[in-house]
Amino acid sequence: MGGMTFIDLRDRYGITQLVFNEEVDAELCEKANKLGREFVIQVVGIVNERFNKNANIPTGDIEIIVSELHVLNAAVTPPFTIEDNTDGGDDIRMKYRYLDLRRNAVRSNLELRHQMVMEVRKYLDGLGFLEVETPILIGSTPEGARDFVVPSRMNPGQFYALPQSPQLFKQLLMVSGFDRYFQIAKCFRDEDLRADRQPEFTQIDCEMSFVEQEDVITIFEGMAKHLFKTIRGIEINEPFARMSWHDAMKTYGSDKPDIRFGMQFVELMDVLKGHGFSVFDDAAFIGGICAEGAATYTRKQLDALTDFVKRPQIGAKGLVYARIEADGTVKSSVDKFYSQETLQQMKEAFGAKPGDLILILSGDDAMKTRKQLCELRLEMGNQLGLRDKNTFACLWVVDFPLFEWDEESKRFMAMHHPFTSPKPEDVHLLDSDTGAVRANAYDMVINGVEVGGGSIRIHDSALQNKMFELMGFTPEKAQEQFGFLMDAFKFGAPPHGGLAYGLDRWVSLFAGLDSIRDCMAFPKNNSGRDVMIDAPAPLELSQLEELNLKINIKE
Amino acid sequence: MGGMTFIDLRDRYGITQLVFNEEVDAELCEKANKLGREFVIQVVGIVNERFNKNANIPTGDIEIIVSELHVLNAAVTPPFTIEDNTDGGDDIRMKYRYLDLRRNAVRSNLELRHQMVMEVRKYLDGLGFLEVETPILIGSTPEGARDFVVPSRMNPGQFYALPQSPQLFKQLLMVSGFDRYFQIAKCFRDEDLRADRQPEFTQIDCEMSFVEQEDVITIFEGMAKHLFKTIRGIEINEPFARMSWHDAMKTYGSDKPDIRFGMQFVELMDVLKGHGFSVFDDAAFIGGICAEGAATYTRKQLDALTDFVKRPQIGAKGLVYARIEADGTVKSSVDKFYSQETLQQMKEAFGAKPGDLILILSGDDAMKTRKQLCELRLEMGNQLGLRDKNTFACLWVVDFPLFEWDEESKRFMAMHHPFTSPKPEDVHLLDSDTGAVRANAYDMVINGVEVGGGSIRIHDSALQNKMFELMGFTPEKAQEQFGFLMDAFKFGAPPHGGLAYGLDRWVSLFAGLDSIRDCMAFPKNNSGRDVMIDAPAPLELSQLEELNLKINIKE
Repeated sequence: MGGMTFIDLRDRYGITQLVFNEEVDAELCEKANKLGREFVIQVVGIVNERFNKNANIPTGDIEIIVSELHVLNAAVTPPFTIEDNTDGGDDIRMKYRYLDLRRNAVRSNLELRHQMVMEVRKYLDGLGFLEVETPILIGSTPEGARDFVVPSRMNPGQFYALPQSPQLFKQLLMVSGFDRYFQIAKCFRDEDLRADRQPEFTQIDCEMSFVEQEDVITIFEGMAKHLFKTIRGIEINEPFARMSWHDAMKTYGSDKPDIRFGMQFVELMDVLKGHGFSVFDDAAFIGGICAEGAATYTRKQLDALTDFVKRPQIGAKGLVYARIEADGTVKSSVDKFYSQETLQQMKEAFGAKPGDLILILSGDDAMKTRKQLCELRLEMGNQLGLRDKNTFACLWVVDFPLFEWDEESKRFMAMHHPFTSPKPEDVHLLDSDTGAVRANAYDMVINGVEVGGGSIRIHDSALQNKMFELMGFTPEKAQEQFGFLMDAFKFGAPPHGGLAYGLDRWVSLFAGLDSIRDCMAFPKNNSGRDVMIDAPAPLELSQLEELNLKINIKE
Repeated sequence: MGGMTFIDLRDRYGITQLVFNEEVDAELCEKANKLGREFVIQVVGIVNERFNKNANIPTGDIEIIVSELHVLNAAVTPPFTIEDNTDGGDDIRMKYRYLDLRRNAVRSNLELRHQMVMEVRKYLDGLGFLEVETPILIGSTPEGARDFVVPSRMNPGQFYALPQSPQLFKQLLMVSGFDRYFQIAKCFRDEDLRADRQPEFTQIDCEMSFVEQEDVITIFEGMAKHLFKTIRGIEINEPFARMSWHDAMKTYGSDKPDIRFGMQFVELMDVLKGHGFSVFDDAAFIGGICAEGAATYTRKQLDALTDFVKRPQIGAKGLVYARIEADGTVKSSVDKFYSQETLQQMKEAFGAKPGDLILILSGDDAMKTRKQLCELRLEMGNQLGLRDKNTFACLWVVDFPLFEWDEESKRFMAMHHPFTSPKPEDVHLLDSDTGAVRANAYDMVINGVEVGGGSIRIHDSALQNKMFELMGFTPEKAQEQFGFLMDAFKFGAPPHGGLAYGLDRWVSLFAGLDSIRDCMAFPKNNSGRDVMIDAPAPLELSQLEELNLKINIKE
């Protein structure tokens, strides 16, 4: 007796069910039965309403009763299954990235990316921003991260560099009178790699003239809201939260706090110091967080948390905890040093309730300990399910310090970059209290991810020279490195400022990814290799000679 | 007595007249009189209808009666005048490119470029094309032009290459099932430079699956028409002309003929050979063009044309000409060799009329002579005003040969690239008559400029291997260079094809520019240098060491 053969045909738009009826055409049905996974086929048939509808897929209401079948290309068995939950490990999927890209989960990230850049361009074009391409082959600059370089055949012994950002060019465009510029720009950094870093990445790079900080924030908060609305269907009407860098560091131990949840830091030096517990008594910082309802944590769970904060990449020495009992008493891991009265004071400081868990870190470097506490807070956020990927909390961090002291080189470095302007009200402190000067700089943080940042730039060559001086540049070195920019400022530069968003991070955020890799079509691995095409690779000797280069690997 | 001071305030949008009235505010007026060229200022005032309207500029109907003036930034005198007809030579304008960009003529090119890419994206997005970013750090490939390379610090002795085009990646995306891809992509070629070549340039790169040549032509002719309509306001309803490569070479001596005007080649071997004029008698090719109404050319003009074709870059030995007199007789520079009867036969071959000028070249290499005649035809088109920059003639050149013979390496090279498919009806000739096989390839030519080109690709690994074999690759070399592509084809590759447009060329064409430089914000000079930022430049020794490189300049 005749039967039916069903085949799932996949294309970019989904799965369509093909039906072959043995009774109608036995030969065709046999041909269909011989098709293998991932064959590329062409069919002719009639679209039919399905009896067993599949409501989970857009094409689940129909099927195609096939009358003709052509195999356009056969396929050997793929090295992993092309499914949402694939059996392929990271390495094999990267080697066969073109197969990995067939998976819904990966394809949809690239579709999302396309939609986002379309909407970004629509928004900015609508506001009169011009997209201008700036060059990829530029000059190497000493500040900032390490450059990738490109030997010039026509200029022997000389090198181009690939841009870490179009920063200088966009400022020159402002000098040129292009008062609203943007570019979705490839940028390059030769740094060691990790989950949210790739050697090449993409910025939504923007700059405006005749603006102050508030103007830039308004336009680009508007862009963020436009993206939330058009891409994620989330309407945000209220202004984004704002926090000074100082408050962010004090309350969250981070310049990119995740404010989807509370657990703000409470400082406990006044309460817990001087009671005979030497760890706290010797500390320069004692602070903690209160995890609501987490008093149920078992000893095992608390030991795991202690192990977590003691991991080398976090580096805390230990963890003190305290449970708030049902009757309001506090039961802590350091009960022998503290009276219930002191512990109650601590409870008050947190505003803790019965059932809450207090976690405390201390250390002799306040900034380091805050960063450790930040990691613990994020971990507790994860454990308590407070970091839902479909909830978004947006924040501007403002009033960054203009400089940070670099212990290694014993000099001030620009915290953002050397072109960031000081706040006008702090300019008088440039010489007398350099470290206290605040910058006209701002970062946008979503869910603890810095998605963008920018500043109002210096547009005055005298002030720019002052900055270089404070950073320890000789006038000659400043002229050599940035002479063309300071020259440009002499010919009439408008006040200007801007911002750059990290496109990869933003797509990852909207796609709910943990790494920026899967929102890129062809990422590199942690050694900077593209394992699919096997690049980088050695050159032919003739190529090296033409470039006037010799390989010089030290043993 | 009080007077008025008028100041032209320039911004991105044009010129606005500012008025300062000495009687109303003498101090303000004095301040205005002290402003220098290119100062950046901010004013407060009242917009007023002008008495003397200037109909030539959009803001010519109004003026601003100024009540407040702030100098935001003073300016030193620029090194050239910031006007449409500047006094600045090419070198000084490139050094101060940020000032050159203030000129209307240059700024408007970048505005045009922005509008074009916005429309390209709108058109392609509307047809379901996804923009996918492919990597800039890829592997070096031996075919094609010379690659720029990037040393890898993390992989000592190894190099990335910058892409000459995203060709391989877009084909892999087709294998991945992204059936409609595009990208406005930076591409790089380390070749010697000239007016229409820059080391980095931009392609509108497209690829589609499940298509044949006609499908690709339809979509991208549609895109061209969309651009003509939205950018230049020109509605083109009829299909673009098509011409085989063979006909283009025979009739215009070029694979990118300018068909804004006629003057097609007429071959004259039958008519003019064997009459005792040894130059023609020994020639492998005799051909000419007929310039309508150019019989008025003086001896001096004709001598200049002879000099033109004898220039080394053209390389003809001489030029024969013939005027058609008012009475229909032909008066030529070779009258002593030819009877009036023969000359009348020649006149008939051209269909020439009284007042026309016939220009004839000959040579012992038909292809070379055709190219010389092509140059002469274009020059006559210029001289006779037949190449109006606001007239556009679009053409598809099709049926290219698949291979061209390379005398130097004594082997066949792919005329487009090694992934171009042969026409199915010519596949049987691959072994027996390799040079005669036609490709599934097509170029779009506008006004003699190749604005784009593409092909239907090979999607079958056996045929791809055959191509490599015909090009003299050993199987090992083919595997080493393109193994990942041939592997990819084994996992089910759909039939696919595409096209890439040269964005820079197209913007230049729409802007009426002779060079692609002025449609780029920051181009390089003919030595590949950016003279504004002075790149490329030597690296610090420590950078070289980190990259495991040594400079090795031969004396």
